[in-house]
Amino acid sequence: MLITRKIEFSASHACRNPSLSDRENSEIFGTASNPHGHGHNYSVEVTLAGDPDPVTGMVMDLKELKDILNREIVEPFDHRFLNHEVSPFDRVIPTAENVAIEIWRRIEPALAGQLHNVRVWETPDLYVDYSGDAA
Amino acid sequence: MLITRKIEFSASHACRNPSLSDRENSEIFGTASNPHGHGHNYSVEVTLAGDPDPVTGMVMDLKELKDILNREIVEPFDHRFLNHEVSPFDRVIPTAENVAIEIWRRIEPALAGQLHNVRVWETPDLYVDYSGDAA
Amino acid sequence: MLITRKIEFSASHACRNPSLSDRENSEIFGTASNPHGHGHNYSVEVTLAGDPDPVTGMVMDLKELKDILNREIVEPFDHRFLNHEVSPFDRVIPTAENVAIEIWRRIEPALAGQLHNVRVWETPDLYVDYSGDAA
Amino acid sequence: MLITRKIEFSASHACRNPSLSDRENSEIFGTASNPHGHGHNYSVEVTLAGDPDPVTGMVMDLKELKDILNREIVEPFDHRFLNHEVSPFDRVIPTAENVAIEIWRRIEPALAGQLHNVRVWETPDLYVDYSGDAA
Amino acid sequence: MLITRKIEFSASHACRNPSLSDRENSEIFGTASNPHGHGHNYSVEVTLAGDPDPVTGMVMDLKELKDILNREIVEPFDHRFLNHEVSPFDRVIPTAENVAIEIWRRIEPALAGQLHNVRVWETPDLYVDYSGDAA
Amino acid sequence: MLITRKIEFSASHACRNPSLSDRENSEIFGTASNPHGHGHNYSVEVTLAGDPDPVTGMVMDLKELKDILNREIVEPFDHRFLNHEVSPFDRVIPTAENVAIEIWRRIEPALAGQLHNVRVWETPDLYVDYSGDAA
Repeated sequence: MLITRKIEFSASHACRNPSLSDRENSEIFGTASNPHGHGHNYSVEVTLAGDPDPVTGMVMDLKELKDILNREIVEPFDHRFLNHEVSPFDRVIPTAENVAIEIWRRIEPALAGQLHNVRVWETPDLYVDYSGDAA
Repeated sequence: MLITRKIEFSASHACRNPSLSDRENSEIFGTASNPHGHGHNYSVEVTLAGDPDPVTGMVMDLKELKDILNREIVEPFDHRFLNHEVSPFDRVIPTAENVAIEIWRRIEPALAGQLHNVRVWETPDLYVDYSGDAA
Repeated sequence: MLITRKIEFSASHACRNPSLSDRENSEIFGTASNPHGHGHNYSVEVTLAGDPDPVTGMVMDLKELKDILNREIVEPFDHRFLNHEVSPFDRVIPTAENVAIEIWRRIEPALAGQLHNVRVWETPDLYVDYSGDAA
Repeated sequence: MLITRKIEFSASHACRNPSLSDRENSEIFGTASNPHGHGHNYSVEVTLAGDPDPVTGMVMDLKELKDILNREIVEPFDHRFLNHEVSPFDRVIPTAENVAIEIWRRIEPALAGQLHNVRVWETPDLYVDYSGDAA
Repeated sequence: MLITRKIEFSASHACRNPSLSDRENSEIFGTASNPHGHGHNYSVEVTLAGDPDPVTGMVMDLKELKDILNREIVEPFDHRFLNHEVSPFDRVIPTAENVAIEIWRRIEPALAGQLHNVRVWETPDLYVDYSGDAA
Repeated sequence: MLITRKIEFSASHACRNPSLSDRENSEIFGTASNPHGHGHNYSVEVTLAGDPDPVTGMVMDLKELKDILNREIVEPFDHRFLNHEVSPFDRVIPTAENVAIEIWRRIEPALAGQLHNVRVWETPDLYVDYSGDAA
């Protein structure tokens, strides 16, 4: 059984690889490579797997989940320029893909083996899913 | 191939275990344990698996599916206080998890082995997925 | 210029007039008259009118607005059975219309003549607008 | 890792099998069998699987993906009557199921083994998922 | 006070003036002039004005409103090719503007002076509002 | 009669008044005053007033409207840091209120007296409406 909680934060990012030239970045990322950055209302869906507890009927305590997501995602990411203010995006390009991987890395320790998937919506037309590294 | 139909109903519920004290219920469920109940516009996505029929191009007759969902879900759940009026929620806590399991149990017999997943949205920020008990 | 902030709460209500018989309530309100109540994820859009402040560029301090809406609407209404737990709905039928009027009445004193409209969505298909009593 | 891009087109279709009588079509498809057709704002979610490129941080170049989806789906399907103007829907009933299969067939060659799923929303209450034919 | 109810129907239309040439229609309406038609999931918001009834707390009986909207809009428009099957769209171009005017014309007699506005969404990005002819 | 077209752009901004201290900005704007900026998927609804043209059935040529909105709004605002790259936001705080006023100022000359309202959604929970300066 899966349970999914959605949270939102507003941040800015620039899609550019510092080891490439401006022209190369522009060819790869288009206007998203603008070094001043641009922003999104990010929406994140965190999915946990488990069986409902027989006493509570819940896969996980939702208040505790909310606290974890606020502490690990909303507080450090919201109202930030990801490339300049949120590690490791000074050296990892904050594409939607890499944002999802980083969110997984940050919340997985607190979720005791229940974390199943992280979905990151960058715009209403684009989202990525990351469910951990099987490698 | 999968086909998913969404339906909605409005109901109220209280998240509390009758075998626990008021204080214990409040610690576990917070304000959701209020015995007067509170409510949601529930949205349910029912997913069937199958191959399109060569004559109709459809995985299942959508009119028949709609009739089943109305008869088994909308009519018994809509405009009801789940804990008091919909079995087995007098003794099973109607968390989103348990609502999904009960919906699966009710519609599975009519769906001839095609039922693949039941998703229940309790609010726009919280949903659960149940795809049957593998145990 | 208008600025609108949306908030949400989950509550249950019953649409019935205590001075009418069960049969009359059922004829007027249908299944919504069920005395056990049913519920909704209410969404409320509060609209203020004003000119942006030359120093802040804002019609109103959004943090202060959020505090007012939480204190006057979310805290008293969320996770409640309106008819039994929120005044005046023990004697005023909590239709969407009356919920909007009551929200206006509660927040108007704190909004210093800027309150312009209250929109209450009871379901994604039904909403009401109240902009004060001109009478 | 999965990345999903959503696109939209507006088209009309009729759900009818030309080898059946009008009465048989009406029994199977109801008003959707009307030979004049009716229409939808179709929404299509195309999901690719892969690992982020170490240089770009992207599973696929999003500008290239957008070009493929415009060329293969939006341009041929948008503002068309599918049964009369888009092959093979002169002989294949354009149910949501068959539209998804046809979209898969059209874009799969350009997506180099990364195509993972095609979801087609016919209305906000009905969608199908197709992830290729395992047979 | 205003109350708004939303309904939906799926229909196809062609935006073309029969008194113009194909080339002129194409210049004005682009691909929307395709005589085979294309389609939309139309969403219609009907707004009524009034005061809540002191006995029922409602501006209008919602069950009666739903019956009127189904009889006057959904039944005649749903699953139809507007230009060929719904009067007066054989001679009036069924742009969103003209669809809204026609819906107003059809429902106004049953709504006893309470009809305030008709909003027609043709796509999620385009809608029109009509509130009657002041001329 | 009104017709409304929605467009979107992604940008970043910082809410801070350069003539105030960091501490004052933080007290007024909270985390939104972060000088690195943060971002949003802005959604803009542009509403025009007019009567449908008797030949075209349209209040305005939608292709022309789309061209104007792309040229005047999407191209200059999309993927930009408003405070640093879009005039006059180097000296005017780009609150949602001021973004709406600036959009009005930019598109009004091309819309020949038909411009009726500009609505700017900064997040799904906050929007402003500007309909010109009556003063």
